[in-house]
Amino acid sequence: MKIEGRNCVAEALRSDSMTVNSLLCQKEFKNSDVAALARAKGVKVQFADKQALDRESADGRHQGFIADVTEFRYCEVEDVLAASEKPFIVVLDGINDPHNFGSIIRVCECAGVDGIIIGKNRQVAVTDTVARCSAGAVAHVRIARVTNVNNAIKFLQRNGVWVYACDMDGQDVTSADLTGSVALVIGGEGSGVSKLTREVCDGIVSLKLKGKVNSLNASVACGIAVYEALRQRG
Amino acid sequence: MKIEGRNCVAEALRSDSMTVNSLLCQKEFKNSDVAALARAKGVKVQFADKQALDRESADGRHQGFIADVTEFRYCEVEDVLAASEKPFIVVLDGINDPHNFGSIIRVCECAGVDGIIIGKNRQVAVTDTVARCSAGAVAHVRIARVTNVNNAIKFLQRNGVWVYACDMDGQDVTSADLTGSVALVIGGEGSGVSKLTREVCDGIVSLKLKGKVNSLNASVACGIAVYEALRQRG
Repeated sequence: MKIEGRNCVAEALRSDSMTVNSLLCQKEFKNSDVAALARAKGVKVQFADKQALDRESADGRHQGFIADVTEFRYCEVEDVLAASEKPFIVVLDGINDPHNFGSIIRVCECAGVDGIIIGKNRQVAVTDTVARCSAGAVAHVRIARVTNVNNAIKFLQRNGVWVYACDMDGQDVTSADLTGSVALVIGGEGSGVSKLTREVCDGIVSLKLKGKVNSLNASVACGIAVYEALRQRG
Repeated sequence: MKIEGRNCVAEALRSDSMTVNSLLCQKEFKNSDVAALARAKGVKVQFADKQALDRESADGRHQGFIADVTEFRYCEVEDVLAASEKPFIVVLDGINDPHNFGSIIRVCECAGVDGIIIGKNRQVAVTDTVARCSAGAVAHVRIARVTNVNNAIKFLQRNGVWVYACDMDGQDVTSADLTGSVALVIGGEGSGVSKLTREVCDGIVSLKLKGKVNSLNASVACGIAVYEALRQRG
């Protein structure tokens, strides 16, 4: 897949979960730190003029750098569990919009989440667009992709993780105890967390809603819940 | 401007800040609650087949309803101040992306923010796209549009509002006192809160960042800060 933009390409070069096969670099940036980093990593760098990069670019925001990288390397749920003594995990249940997924990856990276678990169904995978919307963060977040989200949740529970669905009609997220080994399940916009998944979870946490419309973007809702956990975890 | 989609049109019909001039309604939804609401409000309703709506639609997500509404009616900063005894206000400083602005309006509506203040420069106004991205929430949030954001901040301060910039290198937002009359200033992605605006503010609050990339979407950052205030305000 293609990764574009100065920061995204730099992060891909520093990443363990993707390998940069080659870098297309605008001539003017021959002496940039990104080109130097690529050379230091033994990546083949090809220089071209801006027009050539414009033609290759998906959205014109290449900023002089387009990398060809291997497909994203997903990890296993075990890797996410083993990442810390008291793991803090986000499970996605049906996020279809690549912008939302990218934005969720960004906020999880900022919050130091140990890993994200996604399903194979009703869920966008890590694509070019997701990587771009993650602003490079995808290069530094563990993501496990599982056939069945509910089975993954049960596996987490067997390993001592308390799993909360973020959905309507639960207890206020600020009153739930998020200080231990914990996973937050975020549902898709519109559909929310699916009924079966809700039932598998240990509890439901909700955001306080004080408006008339009360429609939260999935990535914003995820950010609020994740940062509430971060606050509690100190 | 045009408002599309079942919920967005319904909210526009219920709104005080926009007037629906006419409604284009797909024939099949002649007996829907939205069409009934429009008729009850004395709005001219025109019925047409799906193809006609598809042609009129900006992004194909009309769901059978496209309303022609008056331009958004901004309020005055005084209206925002007068909205509650201890006003809770969001000030936007250079949000250029209509999706982010729409998403910020959504989260402010959910959190019961008393009003949003935006500048006329370096800031997208309330457009069709913003309204669409706000998922109808724009119809229920006070938005004041001012020539100079810094002057508006000084006006708030003179009226007893404590103004915090949400930016890098401030105190942790969870340790700041957000329980009184308070305004949060959110800067644009990339640029952040402008230097001059930072200096005018009473304090800087930051989100804890634990990653390598640490790049937060402006609407996600706004949502986290606004909900932290909501938590403190009880």
